[in-house]
Amino acid sequence: MEQLKVIKLGGKILSDPIKLEKALISFSKVKGKKILIHGGGSAATSLAERMGVEVKMIEGRRITDKDMLEIVTMVYGGLLNKNIVAKLQSLHTNALGLSGADGNIIEAIKRPVKEVDYGFVGDIKRVNKQHLSTLLKAKFTPVVCALTHDGLGMMLNTNADTIASDISSSMSKDFDVELLYAFEFRGVLSDINDKDSVISKINAPKFEKMKQNGMIADGMIPKIFNAINASAAGVGRVFICDYLNLETPEQSTEICQ
Amino acid sequence: MEQLKVIKLGGKILSDPIKLEKALISFSKVKGKKILIHGGGSAATSLAERMGVEVKMIEGRRITDKDMLEIVTMVYGGLLNKNIVAKLQSLHTNALGLSGADGNIIEAIKRPVKEVDYGFVGDIKRVNKQHLSTLLKAKFTPVVCALTHDGLGMMLNTNADTIASDISSSMSKDFDVELLYAFEFRGVLSDINDKDSVISKINAPKFEKMKQNGMIADGMIPKIFNAINASAAGVGRVFICDYLNLETPEQSTEICQ
Repeated sequence: MEQLKVIKLGGKILSDPIKLEKALISFSKVKGKKILIHGGGSAATSLAERMGVEVKMIEGRRITDKDMLEIVTMVYGGLLNKNIVAKLQSLHTNALGLSGADGNIIEAIKRPVKEVDYGFVGDIKRVNKQHLSTLLKAKFTPVVCALTHDGLGMMLNTNADTIASDISSSMSKDFDVELLYAFEFRGVLSDINDKDSVISKINAPKFEKMKQNGMIADGMIPKIFNAINASAAGVGRVFICDYLNLETPEQSTEICQ
Repeated sequence: MEQLKVIKLGGKILSDPIKLEKALISFSKVKGKKILIHGGGSAATSLAERMGVEVKMIEGRRITDKDMLEIVTMVYGGLLNKNIVAKLQSLHTNALGLSGADGNIIEAIKRPVKEVDYGFVGDIKRVNKQHLSTLLKAKFTPVVCALTHDGLGMMLNTNADTIASDISSSMSKDFDVELLYAFEFRGVLSDINDKDSVISKINAPKFEKMKQNGMIADGMIPKIFNAINASAAGVGRVFICDYLNLETPEQSTEICQ
């Protein structure tokens, strides 16, 4: 099967122009078929503050009310996506920006209200691998932002780590997929104060233990959770790695089953 | 040659949700290959006011400083483009939103500073008809917003009427193109107070006369100017028409050479 690299850019890279440029230069050097996925939570928070819109969080998760949906649609789908695409074009990568609505590539359902009403948040129902494959075969490089749609005319906010995982597992039926979660460290660290303490391999049982003993917390938990899901769903290779070496993610954390 | 319909939605339709929905329902019924083009100036002005960013205009033309470039990138490329795409998907049109940077479909150069510095405004250098054709052949319906890029990593603000004209003339080499400038009237009116006073045909000499005797002014001048350019550049049929009847633009103004 042909190779496909799915790379999610996260952490603080999106809100740091110098890091973002370096990450995009590194991405542009990746050979063959590839997909870039990005979030942009901190840029959305900045715009909300500038517009006087209250940012509501419950247990570290953003509540997407109507105002916040407008903001993430503007920031993820407009400001960040278009500037990333323009930069990649200047680096001779034929980038094409997408939300889940574009070409109907990711259909979702608005998360049902249980204890918490997350608002306009989409749980992914279906990745349209045919449409993504068509774009890849036509030599476009999809740049996918953290937005989906419900098929009924409504945009929805969806976690970019989950989008990366679900796109990778869907595409694994037709491609030999390598999924990279790229961020500002070389991998998952056993000691947060030691940047060289990269854990070389994590599987599901080890992840459970690490959660229990508090070795990992906060944003790392959903990232590793999504990475393990992707691995379990048949994605060939899954790494958590540095944003500077996207061609060969060495000295990174490999996520295995 | 195969038919292609290029439809520009303008005027006050974009900022009126009910009119926009009607226009998109009408667009979704247009058969065959089609491209939608939209601006969104008044929504950009609203966001600027909400963010406390001064809107600078010279002779009715927007000055795109750095703040305003961010705003139009968010509003045209994000808010409006994604909501239009999501709505069209719900109407079973496989819409795919694009700025000029996406797939490098419209390369521009930043307008040289002469008497006026328009800021980050792009004058179109090249429409990439191959990439647009590839998307059309793959059964996507491009939805193009009023943004281009300079090929060096910078997004630029470009008039949507001009984008419609330039895309139509480029695509005319491979398709039998019909270009519609759709807005809230049935066509160009000889009496602004009489909605039935539609002028059935306008050509370049008539346009000059109408400008001189003040029969047309403001936003109609660049619209007709772009329409005449498209006609002169070989676009098969060019109309200024109502947004409700995009399938068969009857009782509209036809622009001829």
